[in-house]
Amino acid sequence: MLRHVVLFTWTEDTDPATRAATIAALRRLPEEVGGMTSFAIGPDLGLREGNAHTALVADFPDEEAYRGYATDERHLAVIAEHVTPHLAARSAVQYEVPTP
Amino acid sequence: MLRHVVLFTWTEDTDPATRAATIAALRRLPEEVGGMTSFAIGPDLGLREGNAHTALVADFPDEEAYRGYATDERHLAVIAEHVTPHLAARSAVQYEVPTP
Repeated sequence: MLRHVVLFTWTEDTDPATRAATIAALRRLPEEVGGMTSFAIGPDLGLREGNAHTALVADFPDEEAYRGYATDERHLAVIAEHVTPHLAARSAVQYEVPTP
Repeated sequence: MLRHVVLFTWTEDTDPATRAATIAALRRLPEEVGGMTSFAIGPDLGLREGNAHTALVADFPDEEAYRGYATDERHLAVIAEHVTPHLAARSAVQYEVPTP
């Protein structure tokens, strides 16, 4: 199983309503794009100093399913509208995890 | 459920054997420390440019269980020996995910 992990850091002038709208838009991707077996996004809880602001973890059956998601036009449109304009930093990894 | 996500980037002079030993040491944490309901660490698959090198995703029943793990001396010893000396960058988030 392929796990796709992204940690987002938003620009300082990205207000809470915009951050929430961005998370809401990304949260619709399983319905709008699909291909994943699980998908969980949310804001950092503020327990530790120096954290990124938002995490996304999505599991896919295989690399092909992940690539279908990554290159889907509806996905790219959400990134262009809701993510890129507010992004200060982004860190990502795709890695293999045991199928549960 | 609380999800703890860390993306690690290693220094350029951290050779493959050292990276593998670090992952192996972190992979023993569920046995040595415990407290999590799931734990998956692994190296980036190399599918995308600019990614971090290693991802760790661990789920905990609640914040107390996470804090117990985060502050456990055996955990801190693994970080001091296997992570910190090789770390170029680290990005983390703790966030709430639905219990499956």
